[in-house]
Amino acid sequence: MKNQSLMTKLLALCRARGFLFPSSEIYGGLNSCWDYGPLGVQLKNNLKRAWWTDMTKRRNITGLDSSIIMHPKTWEASGHLEGFTDPLSDCKDCKNRFRLEDSCCPHCGSSNITKSRNFNLMFKTFMGPVEEDSSLVYLRPETAQGIFVNFLNVQKSMRLKIPFGIAQIGKAFRNEITPSHSIFRTREFGQMEMQFFTPPEESDKWFEYWREEREKQLLSLGLTFRWKDHSSKDLAHYSKKAGDIQFEFPWDWDELEGIHHRGDYDLSRHQKFSGKKLQYFCPEKKISYTPYVIETSIGTGRLFLALLCSAYKQEEERVVLKLSPHIAPVQIAILALSKKTDLIDLSQKIRVDLEKKYFVDYDDSGSIGKRYRRQDEIGTPFCVTIDFESLEDKKVTVRDRDTMKQERISIDSLPSFFLKSF
Amino acid sequence: MKNQSLMTKLLALCRARGFLFPSSEIYGGLNSCWDYGPLGVQLKNNLKRAWWTDMTKRRNITGLDSSIIMHPKTWEASGHLEGFTDPLSDCKDCKNRFRLEDSCCPHCGSSNITKSRNFNLMFKTFMGPVEEDSSLVYLRPETAQGIFVNFLNVQKSMRLKIPFGIAQIGKAFRNEITPSHSIFRTREFGQMEMQFFTPPEESDKWFEYWREEREKQLLSLGLTFRWKDHSSKDLAHYSKKAGDIQFEFPWDWDELEGIHHRGDYDLSRHQKFSGKKLQYFCPEKKISYTPYVIETSIGTGRLFLALLCSAYKQEEERVVLKLSPHIAPVQIAILALSKKTDLIDLSQKIRVDLEKKYFVDYDDSGSIGKRYRRQDEIGTPFCVTIDFESLEDKKVTVRDRDTMKQERISIDSLPSFFLKSF
Repeated sequence: MKNQSLMTKLLALCRARGFLFPSSEIYGGLNSCWDYGPLGVQLKNNLKRAWWTDMTKRRNITGLDSSIIMHPKTWEASGHLEGFTDPLSDCKDCKNRFRLEDSCCPHCGSSNITKSRNFNLMFKTFMGPVEEDSSLVYLRPETAQGIFVNFLNVQKSMRLKIPFGIAQIGKAFRNEITPSHSIFRTREFGQMEMQFFTPPEESDKWFEYWREEREKQLLSLGLTFRWKDHSSKDLAHYSKKAGDIQFEFPWDWDELEGIHHRGDYDLSRHQKFSGKKLQYFCPEKKISYTPYVIETSIGTGRLFLALLCSAYKQEEERVVLKLSPHIAPVQIAILALSKKTDLIDLSQKIRVDLEKKYFVDYDDSGSIGKRYRRQDEIGTPFCVTIDFESLEDKKVTVRDRDTMKQERISIDSLPSFFLKSF
Repeated sequence: MKNQSLMTKLLALCRARGFLFPSSEIYGGLNSCWDYGPLGVQLKNNLKRAWWTDMTKRRNITGLDSSIIMHPKTWEASGHLEGFTDPLSDCKDCKNRFRLEDSCCPHCGSSNITKSRNFNLMFKTFMGPVEEDSSLVYLRPETAQGIFVNFLNVQKSMRLKIPFGIAQIGKAFRNEITPSHSIFRTREFGQMEMQFFTPPEESDKWFEYWREEREKQLLSLGLTFRWKDHSSKDLAHYSKKAGDIQFEFPWDWDELEGIHHRGDYDLSRHQKFSGKKLQYFCPEKKISYTPYVIETSIGTGRLFLALLCSAYKQEEERVVLKLSPHIAPVQIAILALSKKTDLIDLSQKIRVDLEKKYFVDYDDSGSIGKRYRRQDEIGTPFCVTIDFESLEDKKVTVRDRDTMKQERISIDSLPSFFLKSF
């Protein structure tokens, strides 16, 4: 890893400050599962809301929330049952199973190993009380298929005209052999996907369009990134063209989001496997056709991690998370300089006003320097300090997280100050 | 069912208008799984946000988002592995498995059946590539345990003092034998749970407090309901006291939410099974103790269904969903009376202004009467109609969903009109 120390420090901060905890930690944790703590869930909710609003505020994008367990035929049609596999070998001596990269077992060193066979990465379970083939179902390995099988339900109920898109946020599950880098590659993970249905002849244009739109949204969150286009031999079976947005994580550049030109692969396959016509009737041209699909797909945990990595700064005297103010889990901290009643009363009044509109934290214990450091560590863009003078001059000190500059501002003008700051 | 016709009509409306679709419908659906369509996900998001805000705006409540797959020891400690079972019998003739209520098989009528045995309701799956006991994990049957195992992580990272609560929204899975009433009892479902940690001696007081608080929130959503308190013999193994909030669904009164006094059952059990101390140190009294827990637990789908049932009104000339304005999936519909350019331009201007703050729909096709009916059916509280006169007098017609009264309002005063309406 290029920067192991950054990753170690960041994860320690996440744990100490309530962003991320190893799942079921009191039982020794569970490989690759993570829980989002109070600040983590707030930051994640802010990210999800930013993505969801960016998508569904558009007049030609609508939302969906499909179930995690779907009819198993879905995965035959999508190609996951056949093709979503990793080649694994078994060690005949120590009985471990592993992805073969050398000619001997990585666990015991034996070379008494089987030829590699393909193992499916989907989680299996049984629905209903009887464990038999007819009740075998899978946890979805991607949210996208829930959109494809509902294509006509959504189009007809909302009377949509192509081009239009369907956005979804939800969990997916992949039985990865090698989960890695904390929340970067986990077996249970969040996805934010949008499938955009276009006339075939316009699909290349929309592919370019969505590359630009996704760039804009990631830039608005304060991220820098690079593109890695797939060459034709790297393309997945469903894909006509694809580009990844990569972020420079502490270990290396790695995938954050994928933009895929899926052609008519998914709708055609579901039409074939279900025997139901999945075509769009164009009222102007009076023809039916199978639309092409442009997909944008980003992992919620990956975006969360990228934003934290990008925000984390170790400065001479402090650690600071320079999160964009509109997604920071705490936006304003109210700090009363002492616990004297009249100071607390004034602080609470300011708090009540500001928390109508912002995520506000309140702290009246410890030295003011320590309190600033704590707010810096969780990425709070502004601290408002109420001191004894505030009782006289009706002014407070507003401290900017990034510049550490302090400004004396009248209490009455706080709303307008923050209106232009967020 | 008391009112089968209401349920049938409501589900037909939900399907036609994009609230709910049977999951994987093109493959014949999957028993008990449902997808939320564009208006459904919007309504559900509004409900979730209302609950989340009501909880986490309180200064002593914080959020969490724990994983669906947890360490299997969790379910030993919680009692789910041993006690979360249904007694099932097998028919030796037709091989079906069922909950025994008569002395013969409900599928084929044979009385050649086994004695009932207990089957666990948790969904099992295997984590990692090898399907063996050591990789057996479960999909959580409730979100609550994710909160208990993180009790100290949250308390310490956020420096919380008891009493405090942890709120969580997430999915849970139960392999119900008899899922029923569409989204009322499903195998995959959403929960909104809050666990409130109190000193033992204050727990009865907080139990009453949370009953009142939950009443208030449900009333604010426009619901009426009744209480059903559990007698001591009906209590679950973890429960000291419990009360259900019941709603009159079309089939009967049935459970919507539960308020449970769980005592120290969960934390004590996790302490025992993990060997980790799960106690709170009270800095004032300088003692450590195991707090008691008051739980509020509501099903997201149940609340969704209760609100729709409650809102659905069949009037003489129309069907209308009288949803509370702040949770309606569309809050304002903008209707241009004709497709003339200047009328459309003015309508779009009004739309752009209003959609900064509200969920806005736009419709310029079909007769105005039909458009009003469609908005009534999806529960839109207000329609704003722009007609030719609007171009002259700068006024529009605002129609109230419930009274159907129409009021002429100047375009400039729309923001203040809606500010007091929502």
